Amino acid sequence: MAFELTKELTDEIKDLITSKNESRLRNTYNDFHFADLAEILEALNIDEATYLIKVLDTEKTSEALMEVEEDFREDILKKLSAKEIAEELDELDTDDAADIINELPVDRIENVIAEIEDEDHAENIVDLLRYEDDTAGGLMAKELVKVNENWSVTQCLNEIRLQAENVTRVHSIYVVDNSDKLKGRLSLKDLMVAPANFNISQVYIPKVDFVSVTTEDEEVARIMQKYDLEAIPVIDEIGRLIGRITIDDIVDFIKDEAEKDYQLAAGISSDVEADDNIFDLTKARLPWLVLGLFGGLGSVYIMKGFENALENFPILFFFTPLIAAMAGNVGVQSSAIIVQGLANDNVKGSLWDRLIKEVSLSLINGIALGLLVILFGFIVGQESLVSFTIAISMLSVIIIASLIGTFVPIILDKKGIDPAIATGPFITTSNDIFGIFLFFYISKVILGF
Amino acid sequence: MAFELTKELTDEIKDLITSKNESRLRNTYNDFHFADLAEILEALNIDEATYLIKVLDTEKTSEALMEVEEDFREDILKKLSAKEIAEELDELDTDDAADIINELPVDRIENVIAEIEDEDHAENIVDLLRYEDDTAGGLMAKELVKVNENWSVTQCLNEIRLQAENVTRVHSIYVVDNSDKLKGRLSLKDLMVAPANFNISQVYIPKVDFVSVTTEDEEVARIMQKYDLEAIPVIDEIGRLIGRITIDDIVDFIKDEAEKDYQLAAGISSDVEADDNIFDLTKARLPWLVLGLFGGLGSVYIMKGFENALENFPILFFFTPLIAAMAGNVGVQSSAIIVQGLANDNVKGSLWDRLIKEVSLSLINGIALGLLVILFGFIVGQESLVSFTIAISMLSVIIIASLIGTFVPIILDKKGIDPAIATGPFITTSNDIFGIFLFFYISKVILGF
Repeated sequence: MAFELTKELTDEIKDLITSKNESRLRNTYNDFHFADLAEILEALNIDEATYLIKVLDTEKTSEALMEVEEDFREDILKKLSAKEIAEELDELDTDDAADIINELPVDRIENVIAEIEDEDHAENIVDLLRYEDDTAGGLMAKELVKVNENWSVTQCLNEIRLQAENVTRVHSIYVVDNSDKLKGRLSLKDLMVAPANFNISQVYIPKVDFVSVTTEDEEVARIMQKYDLEAIPVIDEIGRLIGRITIDDIVDFIKDEAEKDYQLAAGISSDVEADDNIFDLTKARLPWLVLGLFGGLGSVYIMKGFENALENFPILFFFTPLIAAMAGNVGVQSSAIIVQGLANDNVKGSLWDRLIKEVSLSLINGIALGLLVILFGFIVGQESLVSFTIAISMLSVIIIASLIGTFVPIILDKKGIDPAIATGPFITTSNDIFGIFLFFYISKVILGF
Repeated sequence: MAFELTKELTDEIKDLITSKNESRLRNTYNDFHFADLAEILEALNIDEATYLIKVLDTEKTSEALMEVEEDFREDILKKLSAKEIAEELDELDTDDAADIINELPVDRIENVIAEIEDEDHAENIVDLLRYEDDTAGGLMAKELVKVNENWSVTQCLNEIRLQAENVTRVHSIYVVDNSDKLKGRLSLKDLMVAPANFNISQVYIPKVDFVSVTTEDEEVARIMQKYDLEAIPVIDEIGRLIGRITIDDIVDFIKDEAEKDYQLAAGISSDVEADDNIFDLTKARLPWLVLGLFGGLGSVYIMKGFENALENFPILFFFTPLIAAMAGNVGVQSSAIIVQGLANDNVKGSLWDRLIKEVSLSLINGIALGLLVILFGFIVGQESLVSFTIAISMLSVIIIASLIGTFVPIILDKKGIDPAIATGPFITTSNDIFGIFLFFYISKVILGF
């Protein structure tokens, strides 16, 4: 079970590739699982990987190609001829094949499609190309098992045997009418238990979850998760069954979405990984740091405005990192909770209730933290009015920071903008500036400098 | 398809419950999908929800109960008698039933189990109770379809019909030998295409992925994702087939894990939601804020040590929020990339390579940001040595922050501690302190105050 890519294994493969030992490679690695093979490919350089792909069976390499990282796959595809790519596509389900086609340079697409042997397959792939990436159409595959409601159970079983040849996993059998409109579903289990002389219309389940070809990918993921579906049929604008989406694609989607939100919260703007090159990593990270820098320079500017506090209350300036940290942390906490709540569709109740709740929460946290600040001041022998001032202004900063953290994502969401962008550096930077201004302003009012 | 919980619907249900209109409730809501019913339940108060559960069919309410939030479910279970709970459990798969039993107070468990009607079912549930939550044993269900390798295809089809009655979804048929040891699998599709007079040993696939009952949940999720599995069999210590895990449980697990990492990064220590009560939210948030506060007080202390810079270089104190923000942002970015990389198992290469890479990356980012600081200083007419000092010390802070952000998670991971705790407030707080110390120390060396 446990496959592990060791250095010895990699070295052995590299040696076999260098010595062009095709038979040995074929005999050993055609038996590997495609997911393991994908790991092996990624441990090779492009030329070695391309060689291995050409040597092994397309049945195996096509699936492995789907598993490797996009950049790596693109580099390999560049080294393959149109005919070689078409052979890989012949083995893939239509959804995966269409994804690969979409990664090809425009001028190669036509040549590759022309080389696909199975004409039906090519036609189905071309059909899929017209859908937007982020819709049910972009996620679905054309492979599915469907039967007509007017068939008998026996006729249906024979048809399924034929259709199932082309479908990797049969989840549900979909039932359509004469004009191909989705009527319901039939589980393999039910069909096996049904008497042979029954008609499909007598055994099928008319209740079936489905999505439209234009449904957004997020909505598809939400529905499949909520209703625990392992596959969902996709219909076109007039109700005809045209494809299905399986849970494995949704698992990847859910994971990608969660990672994207996490990365946005951490101030990383595009999908990068630890092993990406320095240029890609810089592109993803530097913009957020520049944002943070501008925020910091904004704070410099604000503090210059309160410069005359330096004389009598220099201690206030020692507290600015604390204020900034509080404003940032509270803002990130509030925004993370709201962004997850919005994603999971469980932010209920009125805005007013939420306002009351956030303010109460901030009061509790702020008072607890304020008391600690006063205690600290007492221990180090700080003037008590100063400690009190710091505690009060920190409390105000916490309240404002939590309100910004809560309501900015809600407002963005209402305007149809991804609220996840309002987490991380965006919220910490704006809260830093607001926080420091508020801190000095309140201190000035109380201490009068 | 699109169910939406409107206020009208909630009001209507509340009215029907108040007027105890059982027949109307039953006629309408027994037809609802359990996931929709779960949403409805959560919109009611505990008494209303309990009433609705007692009125509707257990077949529906048991599944709905599994979908509502844990706290809410626990409150409802308190209101149900042992017999009523047992009736719900009778309808659930063993894994879900065992999860519910685990949520009951210890003194109720025995009574509830004694009331379960189906003895086999009760036995299976009890078997599951002994496994740890975070292992394959804790995730698996006992429901599965298995056949003996010595049976004929016909005999097998009959057996499957019988067994399938108890299994919600048949993914794979598992093949065992006479002593119940897992030998391989059989897809329903293959079985349907096989000649009736064949023996199972002639048609089954001897290659099957499996996990042991003690395999950790994370590893199960990794394997099922990597190999695109929709179900995986679980074997005991001597290879006997004892259960299976389905992808829907893993989808929930993956989502929970991703959310947990995200919440840790945002400084939220337990699984809370926007709609939880203020006490739970405070408990999840306040500890991290206290950590941040101590960090901030540490910074106050550090700056006191550099107090004599106030006289000639007060501008340095205006830059502390900027330095803290840079140290924090860089640290969060680095740690997020590493934590995700560790979770996805794609942090490869030696530590030395990673060190070189992080330092190069920080140099690029730090120099770019340093130039901006110098430009800013030029525009506002700041003394150029001061601008230069700030730029240089900020560059050093960025390098150190990225190294801490990268290597603390790696070290924690090597020690078997969840690296996700080293993201968010933990990394920002420690980086704030280090950053501010480094900033003043380098400034002191260059400017000599």
